[in-house]
Formats: sequence, structure tokens, C-alpha cells
Amino acid sequence: MSIEKTEQLYEGKAKKVYATNDDRYYIVSYKDDATAFDGLKKGTITGKGAINNRVTNKMMELLEKEGIPTHFVKELNDRETVVRKVKIVPLEVIVRNIAAGSFSKRFGVPEGTPLRCPTLEFCLKDDDLHDPMVNHYHILACGWATEEDLKTITDYTFRINAFMKDFFLKLNIELVDFKLEFGKTPDGKIVLADEISPDTCRFWDATTHEKLDKDRFRRDLGHVEEAYQEILRRLFGE
Amino acid sequence: MSIEKTEQLYEGKAKKVYATNDDRYYIVSYKDDATAFDGLKKGTITGKGAINNRVTNKMMELLEKEGIPTHFVKELNDRETVVRKVKIVPLEVIVRNIAAGSFSKRFGVPEGTPLRCPTLEFCLKDDDLHDPMVNHYHILACGWATEEDLKTITDYTFRINAFMKDFFLKLNIELVDFKLEFGKTPDGKIVLADEISPDTCRFWDATTHEKLDKDRFRRDLGHVEEAYQEILRRLFGE
Repeated sequence: MSIEKTEQLYEGKAKKVYATNDDRYYIVSYKDDATAFDGLKKGTITGKGAINNRVTNKMMELLEKEGIPTHFVKELNDRETVVRKVKIVPLEVIVRNIAAGSFSKRFGVPEGTPLRCPTLEFCLKDDDLHDPMVNHYHILACGWATEEDLKTITDYTFRINAFMKDFFLKLNIELVDFKLEFGKTPDGKIVLADEISPDTCRFWDATTHEKLDKDRFRRDLGHVEEAYQEILRRLFGE
Repeated sequence: MSIEKTEQLYEGKAKKVYATNDDRYYIVSYKDDATAFDGLKKGTITGKGAINNRVTNKMMELLEKEGIPTHFVKELNDRETVVRKVKIVPLEVIVRNIAAGSFSKRFGVPEGTPLRCPTLEFCLKDDDLHDPMVNHYHILACGWATEEDLKTITDYTFRINAFMKDFFLKLNIELVDFKLEFGKTPDGKIVLADEISPDTCRFWDATTHEKLDKDRFRRDLGHVEEAYQEILRRLFGE
């Protein structure tokens, strides 16, 4: 049986999610739409959807080999991928290796400062509250995740960072920071979900420190499409 | 030798700190000045300085008996207290038992909601950055405290909360949340510093839920001085 989209369940800033004729699976469809600054800035990055689809799937496959369970099932086409049906844990998980973006602004640490150790931070996924930063204690006190799930997420996240930092450095890319989301399968297993792409990671060329990610769009640096293509080229050698 | 103030070292929103003729000690002097909302609201609460001095010293003495080292040495007079000279760890340590204030606003949890477990949160003491919330990883990655100091602070803080919750409940007061600061002595020991008062704790009457703390000033609820006096009365039976 081939897996087919049925009704659209959700449309986010960069992706749509569809139910399918197999209730174990969803289909994700990546869009070229880009937003930034809590939705205040909107635009289009031509070809982004197809690039993010391929980059994400490649990373998910590599991470599965590293022993990290993911929601990835099968790339369907250019923009669409079959993923396992999961319930998203309502937390953004942000890892940082080098100070940049909101971290630099909030804490007065100049962009580009290497951190003494990687940091992990959680933000509550809640548009109305503007995704506030929360900590371990807040999450348990309010029941946004269980202690066991948080432990698993923390363990996976640091392992993902260690793997990805190495992997990208071999492509002469510094992994500055990135955002992950996790989901829970119907049988209660935590798996990596969402995407791993220039939309959700800060990638800097390790030699020139040129930005190869969504900051080119956020900060109007030009050559936005070219940055996304460069990431694809380094990953697939195309 | 009696301990005497020499030059003023620091003037904060609610206290002044003086050097003394004994270089092991400082003298703290409590003011009636009150500020709120990151300094935007300013006012005076008559008698506050004297009340906070007495309340703080009482709590410090009780906590010392519980095995928590503090900076407290000796009450000098109405508003002034001798404390050990410490270097303040640049973190505000906030404990919450019941949702209120910025917690309720940031996370959309109605004020008065009991939390499943007490929460601890750290804010970086930095006026220019408006004391941003930071987590354990941020603190280590930026070197604002060492792992060992953080462990000690966390341990002391939960013990202080357990003791104070019980203690105030016997006075028919709910300890909603509070802020602590810690210092480091010249020989590297972490001790509780700063104050414990209606300026730094949310106290609610356990029966009527009437606010007996600085929220009366922040929110223009009236009877501000009376609330501070009521805390003094319950603590000292006066």
C-alpha cells in the first residue's frame, strides 16, 4: 500500500502536516515560506522547502545510525516525507556551542564567543506566550514533560550535538547552535522529530565564518538562496 | 573593638553597604526606598528599612541553626547590621511554591496555582541586561559560577525553602516565592547573603490569601506599611 495524504492537520510557518491513509504515519510537506522575529518578518526563500526536506532526511538517517530514534520513515518526493505519527513534546530544545543571536543579546556575550561547554535550553512552544524560556524545574512543576522524558531528551540532545558538531566540521562548517523538537510515539517512546536544516541551525563556514543559514534572511545579508544551496552542496557533494 | 562604618561601598535600591574598620566585615544599612518593575516605579514605604533589617536577621539566625551558613554577624541598631565581607555570586536565586508574578505572566499559569514541585530559577544580576533568566548550562558555559558553587547553592536553596515554608505556615503565612542571593567568603565558602523580607518574598495570609509583601506596593493595593508591620508582628509577636 502506498502512503497517501488525506486531510491537512496543521500548517506551520515552514511546513504542513497531513494525515495519511495509514494511521501510523503523517506526511510533512516543506514550504518555501520563511518567518523570523516571532513572525514579524515574513518572506520566501526559493527552493528552501526542497533543500530542508533533503537536509533533514539526511541528518535523520545519520542520527538513526548513531542510535538516536527519529520520526523519519521515507522521503516521498522533493518536498514531502513520510514520518511516524508522534505527539510533539511542547518544548523547543536549543543547543549552543558558540554565542550568537538571542543568547548574545540577552546575556551580553559577543556573537562568536566560544562557550566553555555546550548549553541546552528549553523554550515552551506557545505562540501566545512567545515561546518563553523555561527550565527543568518549571517543566516538572507545570507538567509539560515528565522527568523521565526530560532525561531522555537531554541525553539524546547532547549526543546529537556531539555527532553533528563533528560531522559538520568535516564539511568545514561550524555548528554554532540549533533547535530540536521531540515527539512521543503512541507506545510512549521519545523520538527526534521536526527538522534539522539551515532554518533551525546556525551554520558558519569554518574558514571565513560566513553565515550559511537563516540569519542571512533575518538580517538581510543577501545571498539567502545561495547559502541554503551551499549547505546542500556540502552535504551531498552536488 | 567596636565595628564602625568607614566609606560607603555601594548603594542599591533598598540598602547601602559600608566598609568598616574591621576588614572581615561590612555594615548593611536598610532604606525605606522601594522600587519595582526594573526600577520604573519608585516610592517610599515608611518603616520598611527597620522591619526588613529585623526580619532578615531573624531568618538568618534561624537558618544558621538549620545548618545554612549565612553572612549575618550582629544587629547593630534599628537599620544596621554587621555582615561578613563576601563577594556576591552574580545570580538571583528564585524559588517558587505557588505560581505568581512574572512566573504567571510568562508561562500563562494563573496566580495562586500550586506547583507540583518547588521550582528554582537563576537570573543573572546585571541591570543593563535587566537580570535575564539563565540556566545551569548558561552559568557554566559563561563562567558566572562554578559547578561546585552551583551545587552548593542549589542544595542550600531547597533546604531553605523546606524550612521557611514550614516556619511561615506556623505563622499562618503561605510562602509563595522568594529570591535569595549568595556570597563567597575570602576562604571560598558559599554563604547566604542579602536579605529575606517582604521585599524579597511573596507572603500570603494562609486563610484570607491577603498579600503581606511588596506586591501591595507594586500593584497599588494600599495598606503597604501595615502589611510589613503584620509580618513583623507574626514573627516577633509584637
